[in-house]
Amino acid sequence: MRAPPLIFYLKVANLSQNKGYFITFEGIEGCGKTTQVALAGKYLGACGIPHLLTAEPGGTVLGEQIRRLILHETKVRMAPESELLLFSAARAQHVEEIIRPSLESGSWVLCDRFSDATIAYQGYGRGLDLDLICRLNRFSSRALVPDLTILFDTPVQTGLQRARSKTANLTGCLQGDRIEGEDLHFHQRVRDGYLRLAEQEPARLRIVDGTKDIEAIHSEVCTCLDALR
Amino acid sequence: MRAPPLIFYLKVANLSQNKGYFITFEGIEGCGKTTQVALAGKYLGACGIPHLLTAEPGGTVLGEQIRRLILHETKVRMAPESELLLFSAARAQHVEEIIRPSLESGSWVLCDRFSDATIAYQGYGRGLDLDLICRLNRFSSRALVPDLTILFDTPVQTGLQRARSKTANLTGCLQGDRIEGEDLHFHQRVRDGYLRLAEQEPARLRIVDGTKDIEAIHSEVCTCLDALR
Repeated sequence: MRAPPLIFYLKVANLSQNKGYFITFEGIEGCGKTTQVALAGKYLGACGIPHLLTAEPGGTVLGEQIRRLILHETKVRMAPESELLLFSAARAQHVEEIIRPSLESGSWVLCDRFSDATIAYQGYGRGLDLDLICRLNRFSSRALVPDLTILFDTPVQTGLQRARSKTANLTGCLQGDRIEGEDLHFHQRVRDGYLRLAEQEPARLRIVDGTKDIEAIHSEVCTCLDALR
Repeated sequence: MRAPPLIFYLKVANLSQNKGYFITFEGIEGCGKTTQVALAGKYLGACGIPHLLTAEPGGTVLGEQIRRLILHETKVRMAPESELLLFSAARAQHVEEIIRPSLESGSWVLCDRFSDATIAYQGYGRGLDLDLICRLNRFSSRALVPDLTILFDTPVQTGLQRARSKTANLTGCLQGDRIEGEDLHFHQRVRDGYLRLAEQEPARLRIVDGTKDIEAIHSEVCTCLDALR
């Protein structure tokens, strides 16, 4: 993990009076973002910055129950509309119960997936109405927009191979969960959707090459974090 | 239960080639609609009309799991946005998996609550954006609108007393479930919301006085059903 720069120590003195930064980590399955959220948290900790690590869907009791419904209910095909609405329901609770109070207390919040994932997966991946999704995103997050979003861009086959072998190790299931089990075309549309978002909002979304080794990627993430303040 | 009129037997001959009718039963807690759905189902059965009785939120495996989340998760306040989105997610699955296929097979569907409940409870009751709710209703139901909606109008105190004593008998909890436990003003706004909907769409929504006795109400319901064809 990268050592914190001196400048951080000087900045932290004022943090308690400020609202924390909201930073989201995005990308397809197996892009490495979950590992990077954990490393980024350690880095902020070493810098003395109060922070919270969280993930969607989940982060609350309700969200964890919704996560189980979304990822592991496989006997009957889930309507794409239901999937979108469940992710949005989890987000509304997550923002109200966890994210907003943490930011308001001055903590930085590092979140593994947020609104951009809904646009990429349910919009570009499932083909649901992008305009409605954007409106739902504003509604469920009460218009909360990340200060910074780091997109870990990874070729679909590389990512899926990593994700499925991780899930197989954890659960013994070779297909991965319900979303990992979608075909390559679905995941390609998701990746393309993320890249389209990065083109549309270059100031907020920073692309990091997810095929580099963990330490090199972590170093780029730290540079993004250092630039925030 | 009322005996079926002769006219029904004549009409049923053509039903197999037709799409079934979609009839929803609405009203505040304790208005008697659940009893009336069951009686109406028996009436249709006696008329030889294929029919399905179902209820929201629920009607599917996913919907039943969502119903448990909505009604019984009480440790942390649920965000009103989450509640709306969970009801909508259950509806999307219900329409795709149960209601549309049943209607297309020629079955009549009698549903205990549907989109109007979302407008009454989450719109008028919780004060969420009515325009967004209407858009969500169209999205989650894929623009399915009931052919007939019977609104069992009941004073709030009468309804709540009935509902809470029923829930207390079933669960031993005097407060009722999470929604029954809301205050009188909430339920009054819901009742007013339903009445507003009935004013706006008098051809679809028929008001029945929910304080009458069960047989008298059932007779009015049968008259509404007889008039459908």
